[in-house]
Amino acid sequence: MASRELASAGWTPATSSNFSMRVDDQHAAITISGRDKGRLAHDDIMLVDMQGKAVGNTARPSAETELHTQIYRRWPAITVVLHTHSRTQSVASRLFAPAGMVRLQGWELQKAIAGQTTHDSELVIPVFSNTQHMPELVVQVEAWLDSGRPLDAYLINGHGIYTWGRDMAEARRHLEALEFLLGCELDLRRLSA
Amino acid sequence: MASRELASAGWTPATSSNFSMRVDDQHAAITISGRDKGRLAHDDIMLVDMQGKAVGNTARPSAETELHTQIYRRWPAITVVLHTHSRTQSVASRLFAPAGMVRLQGWELQKAIAGQTTHDSELVIPVFSNTQHMPELVVQVEAWLDSGRPLDAYLINGHGIYTWGRDMAEARRHLEALEFLLGCELDLRRLSA
Amino acid sequence: MASRELASAGWTPATSSNFSMRVDDQHAAITISGRDKGRLAHDDIMLVDMQGKAVGNTARPSAETELHTQIYRRWPAITVVLHTHSRTQSVASRLFAPAGMVRLQGWELQKAIAGQTTHDSELVIPVFSNTQHMPELVVQVEAWLDSGRPLDAYLINGHGIYTWGRDMAEARRHLEALEFLLGCELDLRRLSA
Amino acid sequence: MASRELASAGWTPATSSNFSMRVDDQHAAITISGRDKGRLAHDDIMLVDMQGKAVGNTARPSAETELHTQIYRRWPAITVVLHTHSRTQSVASRLFAPAGMVRLQGWELQKAIAGQTTHDSELVIPVFSNTQHMPELVVQVEAWLDSGRPLDAYLINGHGIYTWGRDMAEARRHLEALEFLLGCELDLRRLSA
Repeated sequence: MASRELASAGWTPATSSNFSMRVDDQHAAITISGRDKGRLAHDDIMLVDMQGKAVGNTARPSAETELHTQIYRRWPAITVVLHTHSRTQSVASRLFAPAGMVRLQGWELQKAIAGQTTHDSELVIPVFSNTQHMPELVVQVEAWLDSGRPLDAYLINGHGIYTWGRDMAEARRHLEALEFLLGCELDLRRLSA
Repeated sequence: MASRELASAGWTPATSSNFSMRVDDQHAAITISGRDKGRLAHDDIMLVDMQGKAVGNTARPSAETELHTQIYRRWPAITVVLHTHSRTQSVASRLFAPAGMVRLQGWELQKAIAGQTTHDSELVIPVFSNTQHMPELVVQVEAWLDSGRPLDAYLINGHGIYTWGRDMAEARRHLEALEFLLGCELDLRRLSA
Repeated sequence: MASRELASAGWTPATSSNFSMRVDDQHAAITISGRDKGRLAHDDIMLVDMQGKAVGNTARPSAETELHTQIYRRWPAITVVLHTHSRTQSVASRLFAPAGMVRLQGWELQKAIAGQTTHDSELVIPVFSNTQHMPELVVQVEAWLDSGRPLDAYLINGHGIYTWGRDMAEARRHLEALEFLLGCELDLRRLSA
Repeated sequence: MASRELASAGWTPATSSNFSMRVDDQHAAITISGRDKGRLAHDDIMLVDMQGKAVGNTARPSAETELHTQIYRRWPAITVVLHTHSRTQSVASRLFAPAGMVRLQGWELQKAIAGQTTHDSELVIPVFSNTQHMPELVVQVEAWLDSGRPLDAYLINGHGIYTWGRDMAEARRHLEALEFLLGCELDLRRLSA
């Protein structure tokens, strides 16, 4: 299963991170808060509706569930949302938070993002302020989306990344490519100081 | 077994590090000094009392045993103490030794530490001076505890980290989160220079 | 298979990279664009002629196929061409692009490159401009070759490395040595700033 | 076998490195030049005398064989010599070559070196100039030894490390501890700039 592979790559330290998959127009399956993502079993996944409320069970959905369902509501073609906390993602979010975004340009691997056809385009990843109150994050994401700018992924400051895809392969390709590109940007910055 | 996983993650170089587990009110089991933590067998673990003296065998307890039993004596709910020497832990301890502590703030993963509920709090990890004479370390830890400040873990300068938990899962979550957070702090410092 | 090992070493993020092997004077087998290099099956490899056109099948050869066949046309003894995108390769290409080349000197491991007999020689790896139009890259490589300078490998800016060998063992030794040497150069530069 | 583990840890890139073991007062077994250290078989190891000449076979001993036998001649108790080329070792050798040595102090893990009892001592690792002519290296090592200073290991500039032990466990502990300590020194220097 994908979550085991992401865990073994060090992207889900200390039971953080969560993953979801669309079930149908009205429902998604999402990992339950606080479980070890390297050892997920059937009981660690729950069904929620598109407002992020539990369906058919009494477990508490992760506080971040609303961020997943927001993406599913906005884009019917998206079927997978991944949220991870790698060290690279966390550090990049802190470094670029004052600018409010990471601007990626000149990297061939930008083409791994759906719709990107050349290393010459600019790929922009916003960095939103962290908060323990999820509705404030939902509002920040909604404002970006409403501004009409493209959104392939976003960082939350000091926290991690959200990205998604039309299927698991695309979502994982996006996550892998963004992890790589953020790592390259950090390296280049260390070297160009 | 947990010690094998910690060894394979590179946290126990060259037979360093030791791990212990509370057996009852008066006893703990602890790894024996100088054994390869990636290949522990039954004979590499010994029983000690809460003053760190061997019970029922003649092996020499690790000099650092007193640091483990100090934690068990102070907090009856703690059942696992882990001490490791990763490169990140060693380097962070040297870097922050002049300040006497590492102050962590703004990282979502601080919430992996029991009792932390927001990235906005400050998580303080003291850095104590290294010494080959353990009672001096015991005194430094005792002084911090007696000052009433919280203590979730401590670094020893040029040496490594001690952390603990109410069960193995919590102790490992603390260790994994602290390793991650110290790594993030070092990266951020390299980038912000 | 070699491609699985290269994938697991993190050199082929997000389905990038491609590998080829000479079949005879007129043909080479090459990996098909967009497949996961960690999970290659028989169907993910296609036959091309020395102009990079598909032979006996209708799959689209990777746009970068011409860069492989250019090497086979130039040197009849070369039987393997490898193209990877590691983080080190990508970052080094960006850092050294303004100089147009990486100059390696003083590293014992330069001797892993065929024909290098001492750490005292200078090993030069050109960095070519990236483009989505392959014929422009072919021209850059051809111009370097026509200048009579040795060519053991080249970087493409923001993109990755091409290297080759008389057999798979030599090609892999070249790739492994260059990855190592570029990593050392980046480290040394961070430390000497 | 130890050589496979060292190879998988990335310490023997591109068939570099060699390992030896004392057989008796007059002989040692040593790995043959240019073989993949991750896949050593019986035929990749040869017998040499204490002057580094092949015994009972016609294979060419590695040029570096004399550096191994020099250690066996000097210290009868040493039974294993390890030579590796990690990225950390290579970079540290270049960085510290102008000073002619690395001075390690304040690291608990110095105690992993036989005879070191406290982090407060200074552990000195000389850095010798690289040369393709081995007798010049033998002379540099001999001069250091004759000066009466302790020698637990040495670096060769741009090349790698030599270390040894009274048995394989001690030699590996020395190698692992030195790799760790050199890595810590490089990290600390990056952070203290």
